[in-house]
Amino acid sequence: MDIKAYLEQKRELIDKALKKHFLESKEELLKRLKESMKYSLFAGGKRLRPILCIAGAEAVGGSSEDVLSVACALEFIHTYSLIHDDLPAMDDDDMRRGLPTNHKVFGEAMALLAGDGLLTDAFYIMTKQGCKNPERLIRVINLIAEAAGSNGMVGGQAVDIESEGMDVDISTLEFIHCHKTGALIKASVTSGAILAGAKEHEIKAISNYGINIGLAFQIADDILNVIGDPKLLGKSVGSDIEKQKITYPSILGLDKSKQIQEELVKKAISFLNIFDSKADPLREIAKYIIERKK
Amino acid sequence: MDIKAYLEQKRELIDKALKKHFLESKEELLKRLKESMKYSLFAGGKRLRPILCIAGAEAVGGSSEDVLSVACALEFIHTYSLIHDDLPAMDDDDMRRGLPTNHKVFGEAMALLAGDGLLTDAFYIMTKQGCKNPERLIRVINLIAEAAGSNGMVGGQAVDIESEGMDVDISTLEFIHCHKTGALIKASVTSGAILAGAKEHEIKAISNYGINIGLAFQIADDILNVIGDPKLLGKSVGSDIEKQKITYPSILGLDKSKQIQEELVKKAISFLNIFDSKADPLREIAKYIIERKK
Repeated sequence: MDIKAYLEQKRELIDKALKKHFLESKEELLKRLKESMKYSLFAGGKRLRPILCIAGAEAVGGSSEDVLSVACALEFIHTYSLIHDDLPAMDDDDMRRGLPTNHKVFGEAMALLAGDGLLTDAFYIMTKQGCKNPERLIRVINLIAEAAGSNGMVGGQAVDIESEGMDVDISTLEFIHCHKTGALIKASVTSGAILAGAKEHEIKAISNYGINIGLAFQIADDILNVIGDPKLLGKSVGSDIEKQKITYPSILGLDKSKQIQEELVKKAISFLNIFDSKADPLREIAKYIIERKK
Repeated sequence: MDIKAYLEQKRELIDKALKKHFLESKEELLKRLKESMKYSLFAGGKRLRPILCIAGAEAVGGSSEDVLSVACALEFIHTYSLIHDDLPAMDDDDMRRGLPTNHKVFGEAMALLAGDGLLTDAFYIMTKQGCKNPERLIRVINLIAEAAGSNGMVGGQAVDIESEGMDVDISTLEFIHCHKTGALIKASVTSGAILAGAKEHEIKAISNYGINIGLAFQIADDILNVIGDPKLLGKSVGSDIEKQKITYPSILGLDKSKQIQEELVKKAISFLNIFDSKADPLREIAKYIIERKK
């Protein structure tokens, strides 16, 4: 299959759905908040999490339509996490995807609120249209909230911030990566499968796939921060070294880090053995995750 | 009825449930994040929103147990909003409920993340135990997310921040109050009624009650900031004047503001005419809201 065409096609589908689901308001007073939210939501993201949600549904015979509102909600949550992560009190980043970060354009207060709004609106979007199967939707909301919350993504960010400048070991770094990035990636692909009516052993397999590509994705990010092309990445390279951030390459070196990400991708794909060709997008996405240039 | 005893009894019930629902973690790495979240969650809040949720359920024949996890989630969301609102980029407050604000104790990054964690975990708590009636729960999640999101509380905060130092009119101020404070109060009492199986006309009546007490509550807050006792409030008085915040008293004066809040409470109670004595707690809470000293 042509994974690039697949990703492009789904990205367009999601961008259209994001525009549809974005909570517009005729209220003039809310104009700047909404602008701030849209600025980051439509800043050229890869839409990896929504695509994984759709591909997770497709792997078990479902379709995009079954999961599109949850897929959009996942991108809302991802975008909020980037806005808050870039704030001066956090990573203090000036550039993101080739553009000034949200607080550089709208100020700190509005960036904080844009993040809060996107996170909260995500749960509105998920529940707006009701659901053919409300039990499944409740399970998915629970899964996503757990992955994004204090025992998931927020927890990973907290440990990441606390570890800055400290000499952390590889197990702490794995904790950070798996929580900060891996948890929502795992929840994205798994929620697609659940909504599409996957059986429990299929959900388990897809969840294991998600855990492994989640960690591989963040190691790939670490590697791109060393050897990536700043033009393609849309942000400066070497910022991890500058900030003395502990990463896989900084602890284990580039070669060993590359080897680990390749093993994780192999392992992820092996969990898909129970599925037929409908899981090919998931297989190809796993490879793409470590081959991408941005 | 003895409203003080009622509020005290429910407050104890909610505090116990909050401890039960709080997402503990054995992970040593998450210790500081969890401490930060608990610091604000158990800082002596009035638990008004969860109590309204319970009283809303009781008014239509439901019980505390039907709504306790959603009631706790509402307090999580309220607490997150206070933590973020106190941040230097926002209201920059040092004291809250007689204690240093979250960022004063845990630093800005951790306070930001504690808020993010509480907001996200709220949606985990609501969906953890499943629900006898999943359709009702989905409707309630949607209602709460809308009330707390960019067209609700976050929207109100955005306009509030943008209006600081500006000469806003009473309609903008009403917008801020109804969104920043009123929306979640309305959603709290309404979600209790929905979960307890209220009929549509009952939901409408309780929602109207909520809109009116929500605005009355914030006007009462404005008034307390002028004439309240700092010892009882746990924060300094006069901070609105100092920050040149536009409030009901600053635009309309104290007497007119008091008159408006009394009219709102009367109007709120009139919407409860279709209910019997089971709605007495709601009637008494409406009066308490403008008589409270903190």
